Amino acid sequence: MSISPRQQIAPQGPEFSRIVLGLWRLSSWQMTPAERVDFLKAALDLGITTIDQADIYGDYTSETLLGEAFALAPELRQRFQIVTKCGIQFPSVNRPHQTAHIYNTTAAHIIQSAENSLRSMQIDCIDLLLIHRPDPLMDADAVAQAFLQLQQSGKVKHVGVSNFTPAQFDLLASRIPLVTNQVECSLLHTAPIDDGTFDNCQRLRISPMIWSALAGGRLFSDQHPQIQVLHAELNRIANELDVSVSCVAMAWVLNLPSQPVLLTGSGRVKVLEEAVRACGCQLSREQWFDLWRAATGQDLP
Amino acid sequence: MSISPRQQIAPQGPEFSRIVLGLWRLSSWQMTPAERVDFLKAALDLGITTIDQADIYGDYTSETLLGEAFALAPELRQRFQIVTKCGIQFPSVNRPHQTAHIYNTTAAHIIQSAENSLRSMQIDCIDLLLIHRPDPLMDADAVAQAFLQLQQSGKVKHVGVSNFTPAQFDLLASRIPLVTNQVECSLLHTAPIDDGTFDNCQRLRISPMIWSALAGGRLFSDQHPQIQVLHAELNRIANELDVSVSCVAMAWVLNLPSQPVLLTGSGRVKVLEEAVRACGCQLSREQWFDLWRAATGQDLP
Amino acid sequence: MSISPRQQIAPQGPEFSRIVLGLWRLSSWQMTPAERVDFLKAALDLGITTIDQADIYGDYTSETLLGEAFALAPELRQRFQIVTKCGIQFPSVNRPHQTAHIYNTTAAHIIQSAENSLRSMQIDCIDLLLIHRPDPLMDADAVAQAFLQLQQSGKVKHVGVSNFTPAQFDLLASRIPLVTNQVECSLLHTAPIDDGTFDNCQRLRISPMIWSALAGGRLFSDQHPQIQVLHAELNRIANELDVSVSCVAMAWVLNLPSQPVLLTGSGRVKVLEEAVRACGCQLSREQWFDLWRAATGQDLP
Repeated sequence: MSISPRQQIAPQGPEFSRIVLGLWRLSSWQMTPAERVDFLKAALDLGITTIDQADIYGDYTSETLLGEAFALAPELRQRFQIVTKCGIQFPSVNRPHQTAHIYNTTAAHIIQSAENSLRSMQIDCIDLLLIHRPDPLMDADAVAQAFLQLQQSGKVKHVGVSNFTPAQFDLLASRIPLVTNQVECSLLHTAPIDDGTFDNCQRLRISPMIWSALAGGRLFSDQHPQIQVLHAELNRIANELDVSVSCVAMAWVLNLPSQPVLLTGSGRVKVLEEAVRACGCQLSREQWFDLWRAATGQDLP
Repeated sequence: MSISPRQQIAPQGPEFSRIVLGLWRLSSWQMTPAERVDFLKAALDLGITTIDQADIYGDYTSETLLGEAFALAPELRQRFQIVTKCGIQFPSVNRPHQTAHIYNTTAAHIIQSAENSLRSMQIDCIDLLLIHRPDPLMDADAVAQAFLQLQQSGKVKHVGVSNFTPAQFDLLASRIPLVTNQVECSLLHTAPIDDGTFDNCQRLRISPMIWSALAGGRLFSDQHPQIQVLHAELNRIANELDVSVSCVAMAWVLNLPSQPVLLTGSGRVKVLEEAVRACGCQLSREQWFDLWRAATGQDLP
Repeated sequence: MSISPRQQIAPQGPEFSRIVLGLWRLSSWQMTPAERVDFLKAALDLGITTIDQADIYGDYTSETLLGEAFALAPELRQRFQIVTKCGIQFPSVNRPHQTAHIYNTTAAHIIQSAENSLRSMQIDCIDLLLIHRPDPLMDADAVAQAFLQLQQSGKVKHVGVSNFTPAQFDLLASRIPLVTNQVECSLLHTAPIDDGTFDNCQRLRISPMIWSALAGGRLFSDQHPQIQVLHAELNRIANELDVSVSCVAMAWVLNLPSQPVLLTGSGRVKVLEEAVRACGCQLSREQWFDLWRAATGQDLP
């Protein structure tokens, strides 16, 4: 059985497993607390030691569900690095005082959200706290001040952002060191390869964290002719390498030179195994560019 | 009665009133010199101490009209900070030697234009001189040299640009410190929020100066369905806050974290009062994002 | 007869002739080796001392054809600065082991390609080696390492890139000094004027090298109404200045403030003479902006 490799994601950043256990959909998996513990143990067995959360996942329930598992098996906490996010608010039965869908990167909200995440997950420290979305009202000094206060109080180890453009990243990074930018990338969403996002990461020696590397499954289900062409290429290469098509699609992202780490989105151990396997799947340049051509529908200039 | 707050617009920059008296349309207001003096005094009474001009405004007449007012009431000059611009030339009865519409950022033109602005406005010093538009033929060293010469001779205190992209700004800022980028922004023109313009300003701790914050009135007159939706939101929030819709629309811009200063465009004191009132109008995040949604026609991701 | 001026293309960069002999199409000119020698001598007589090559030009034959000329007239080599490129691979009878069209910026390929270029051109040193196209798989550290190794072994003097965006340029320039970005620019391709490419060059005091300044001839042959308008303007200005239309079109690019050097693409000495003449052709701002308006179909804002 393969084991996820590990890597330091930034010069002063934490060491993560290359495959990160994304718990975006945890609440939909209908697991009992004991099943959640088993799932976490299965991840650890695969070398997956990094967990990705957000305050809002599962309509504000996903962190609590993870916390219940940690309460049941307290020895697990120290074996994981935990990433969570803040900065989005929306109406929810679980947040009755919230009446609108907004972004909120005020110092007060960041600190309150982080402290709430600690309580929900029943942990003492967040390994990496991210601003979830770029906020047009973001006061970079206020965010940096809140981040610093959380770091000095030992509640947060590292800080970063998610879904930021290079200009947004450079702004906040001018105030406080950021260790990652978590962004969407897949064969159906290649923008960060072209728009400077990954160039900026590589320049700063920061690994992006990648969400939706399989385009939420659309990579395999969409009947659009262009995606069918891509699917045919994925199948051909999967056969060449004797791996699954999802393994090839994830390897296509993992092969990028900014050395991304990759989030999973499934509650099935089999899918985690595929992701770990993708770490060992080295595409040739011919294979990588064949997929790029199929994805963009254009030949290389 | 409210008074405009004041702010330093850059680390080494001048202190301006947050509301800036834009004299773009001065020539169309048909004021006698005495009426212009009264208008300036009314602005001062509102704490509006910063004037925005350009050599070309009013077909090259606006600076002269202001100069006539200063000649009539010389004590006024020292109570204002005066911004003007250079770098555009077009055919005009007032510039008979100009035969074409061009940009001109040669050192000779910048210096000549600044000296002409001093004479027209009957003043000894321009507080802030801006390059009016990005010029594809701009030699950054030549512009910096001209700016420096004007500063060393005491004719210009600070320098900046207008309508520059981040890359254009970074180029000229690599040669000489710039204290602002004057750009268009309103609920109908949100580009600088997304394209890095304001991120760059905030990173450098520079306040943008905003022109056309009410989209030249189109924000209230346009019958396009999307703008009607926006207008309804503006009305709702204006009622909530018991202020005018234009006050809300200006506050939406003033609430941006890059701490913009805002140009007026009217010759009516009532409109200046509204702008000053907008400085004290703190929108909640819910209100700000409701307007953004209405302006973009899209929900938050 | 005019002589091409010369310029240092970067603070630590080489001195080039402003007109660069582009040998992209050399193989199509059907010249005997002796004719190639004569052509090179004619270029030298015009002050054109810089040659632009790439491994792939002429289906991997252009460098060899140049090498044959150098073998016939060895005294010529020292009178030229030679630019070549690497990083693209495609199937060719001349590269039977290559089965696909890919980009390849691995250290191994860069070094092998440079060494092969040295052999093909029968020279000891490449004055400037460029990465031909931005490669989404580029590991900037690996490229810098390969470049450094080639420089330390005396096989390459200077390094740079071609067709890079500002973000791609900044990434590689963070690892090793780059002396140019060779890009397409013409009245029919004005993107680098607006998208930060030339702003970035000027900020770093680096001259871009320009390919296709005449849009591959399309500037004169295309019957599109907008291009016809442009052609009329070119003719008018050519008459005003008593030069050819191609001279005006090249001067339009040469007049840019980033001080570009310009590649030729023809095997006819008459065309080289036109290019050299364009170096002395100073367009007025009126003429330059008239052409810009005609090219973009829009008036200045």
